[in-house]
Amino acid sequence: MTIATSYRTTDVRFVTSSRHDGAPQPPLDPAGRSTAASAAYLAIEPESADGLEGHGFVYSTGTGNHFQLAAIDAVMALIAHRDVEALLADMGGTWRMLMHDTRLRWLAPDTGVVQTAIGAVVNALWDLKAKRAGMPLWRLLSRLSPDEIVDLVDFRYLTDALTPMEALDILDDAVPGRAEREAFLLANGYPAYTSTPGWLGYTDDELERLCRQALDDGFTQIKIEVGVDLEHDIRRLAIARDVCGPDFPIAIDAGRRWDVDDAVRWVGALERFDLHWVSEPTSPVDVLAHAAIANAITPIPIATGERAHSRVVVKQLLQSNAIGYLQIDATRVAGINENIANLLLAARSGVPVCPHACGAGLCEAVQHLAMFDYVAVSGSMEDRAIEYTDHFHEHFVTPAVVEGGRYRAPSAPGAGTEMLAESVDAYSWLSLVALDGVA
Amino acid sequence: MTIATSYRTTDVRFVTSSRHDGAPQPPLDPAGRSTAASAAYLAIEPESADGLEGHGFVYSTGTGNHFQLAAIDAVMALIAHRDVEALLADMGGTWRMLMHDTRLRWLAPDTGVVQTAIGAVVNALWDLKAKRAGMPLWRLLSRLSPDEIVDLVDFRYLTDALTPMEALDILDDAVPGRAEREAFLLANGYPAYTSTPGWLGYTDDELERLCRQALDDGFTQIKIEVGVDLEHDIRRLAIARDVCGPDFPIAIDAGRRWDVDDAVRWVGALERFDLHWVSEPTSPVDVLAHAAIANAITPIPIATGERAHSRVVVKQLLQSNAIGYLQIDATRVAGINENIANLLLAARSGVPVCPHACGAGLCEAVQHLAMFDYVAVSGSMEDRAIEYTDHFHEHFVTPAVVEGGRYRAPSAPGAGTEMLAESVDAYSWLSLVALDGVA
Repeated sequence: MTIATSYRTTDVRFVTSSRHDGAPQPPLDPAGRSTAASAAYLAIEPESADGLEGHGFVYSTGTGNHFQLAAIDAVMALIAHRDVEALLADMGGTWRMLMHDTRLRWLAPDTGVVQTAIGAVVNALWDLKAKRAGMPLWRLLSRLSPDEIVDLVDFRYLTDALTPMEALDILDDAVPGRAEREAFLLANGYPAYTSTPGWLGYTDDELERLCRQALDDGFTQIKIEVGVDLEHDIRRLAIARDVCGPDFPIAIDAGRRWDVDDAVRWVGALERFDLHWVSEPTSPVDVLAHAAIANAITPIPIATGERAHSRVVVKQLLQSNAIGYLQIDATRVAGINENIANLLLAARSGVPVCPHACGAGLCEAVQHLAMFDYVAVSGSMEDRAIEYTDHFHEHFVTPAVVEGGRYRAPSAPGAGTEMLAESVDAYSWLSLVALDGVA
Repeated sequence: MTIATSYRTTDVRFVTSSRHDGAPQPPLDPAGRSTAASAAYLAIEPESADGLEGHGFVYSTGTGNHFQLAAIDAVMALIAHRDVEALLADMGGTWRMLMHDTRLRWLAPDTGVVQTAIGAVVNALWDLKAKRAGMPLWRLLSRLSPDEIVDLVDFRYLTDALTPMEALDILDDAVPGRAEREAFLLANGYPAYTSTPGWLGYTDDELERLCRQALDDGFTQIKIEVGVDLEHDIRRLAIARDVCGPDFPIAIDAGRRWDVDDAVRWVGALERFDLHWVSEPTSPVDVLAHAAIANAITPIPIATGERAHSRVVVKQLLQSNAIGYLQIDATRVAGINENIANLLLAARSGVPVCPHACGAGLCEAVQHLAMFDYVAVSGSMEDRAIEYTDHFHEHFVTPAVVEGGRYRAPSAPGAGTEMLAESVDAYSWLSLVALDGVA
């Protein structure tokens, strides 16, 4: 019996200079409240001869990593004395065991740091399982039988939208083309879109330059951040549309800044720029507001889900026709298993999944889910793309590779979630604080 | 300037024997995973001459208290160096400052341990403010002007259901009768219902005895836990209905055990017992499922909200006509301010608020909100009752008093959230572990 007792956690923070890409990044401060691309990072080290480890993480902006890690400890306490082989052999059962623990569920059922802690642990187990199988995760998942995939999902609270039998039908339908799609994926990769040009902090010149760069790089779509100043947004969208030409897909992202009326008014003022989608118009848990906005701004679709903290929220966004695109996130939910539920729910609704991946390690992790979706679930790449931002890849053992605007299918065994040991050490919060002379 | 720098937190766990009231309570275990009525407890000690402290807590079942406390630390870091007088003088501004901190929001926007940590801090500040004013919290709130009350609320994500102006109208309408209702409340108290008879773990004899006791004690309603075994539920409801007579309100509580179809079938099999309401039929965040169930089981109303982790979820439950009663909880959301938003949303929808209070200290805390609602918001006690369970009151400085089935209006200054220092010491998890010889 191989015991999972041993594991390491690290508070990793990629504290950099005051760049304007993504969230603002103030310098280190004594209270430890810097905002930076960060991870509550987990490595499970089973006592086995092959020496393989499983790595997972919760992406964050730094603050709260200490209690995210404490939540990971609480989840690890549920499996630390169990046989790793048995856990890996029954990943559906393992997931349900973690999800149904009444003591952890009390604090925040299907939401918050408990949910994401389960995600880190489950993703680390999948990473280990894929490494042992010698396969990248997308291929490991894509070679499971429909029955095996259905068994990975917990259908509690889902059956009004998706029953196990309906899930099986979706997966059965995709079986015939699996080999052909896997070959196509290996040859051609998966479309990528970039959010790099559109950060609010960039000047107009930077925006213009980065839009041109996105075109030159072959990306199939760009996304522009909006929602603080309407005139500013109009000017920036005019620049982007001018550079990209009339038919290139340009999406906007409102970063949850609007109430319903704000969203309708603002999108109305921007619709002349031919918006491919509107991301995150309002509160991530407000299903009814999303549905109301979607209805008012039709035919412009809403894309969201990156902060939908469980399959139950995703289910409702789909049931209410609130979203035209589902943006799953690799570390916002309870791991691979919950995202498989999300993929099945989207497939059942005929809604394309375009993963969110703006954050350290998110491209590396989520690409496996989109590729699995293509090979074995929805069976389609049409009108789909995985987000890509060009930061932090250098810290990962198997960095995501985007060429000609397409993600190359990973070939290395694992889930893509392992950071370089040197990066974990160099950016561990404790060592950063020590170097800064604060602690 | 009075600084809030100093505060204490304690992991309090009322570990008892293996009683069958409420959650199962196994004995202490080495992994610290016992389930017990517990609190992540906070006492703010400003450096002021009056020596008054503010106390708040998050009710839990024990597991995860360590990261709940870490989250409270993170929230306290936002106010620890600020002037307490300024914080107390602008409780609306204080609340918005805590709620809008982008770093804390990243981890779990409007949900989970961050939300409840904000609640503990805000409630401790309200406790301090009420003590300084020499008033029980319900009276302090009830004497604020409508403008002052509106300013306590953050209307972000609410305006599609409730605008500040609409909230002001509700509060203005209630001004004329305030004095009369306060007098009535002081003379007559507020109706209570009891969940004590209905725990699944009780024998039929205990159920019968406790139903009789509830009638003898003058309670206006009882609640029976259901959802594990239908035949068992039918037998128990028959006993309860037999003891209580045909017109006495009997509610059921399904503890989130059902999907939509389960709920409709199960309630259909129990409806002959004349159900006053159905509590928590399904996932607490599943607005659409609640609406579907409500539609199918009408005219039996759904009562929920005790695990709705923010005003945004409460808003949707009301907008979709999913609930006939709103069960606010004192420590499940971001404190008094968020619950004031919930009271206003319910008043706007004409839905009675019947607070959830099954847990250590919850009766003590939530009674203030129901009484404030009566005096200054909805202006009504009709078809309303506060839950009451007869446990753990002895650990509080100003325990809730229920006589003749009615809560007596608290007269002691504060929010009711202060535990006896001896209880905090005696039940601190560290000291319990030490006594048990585990650590």
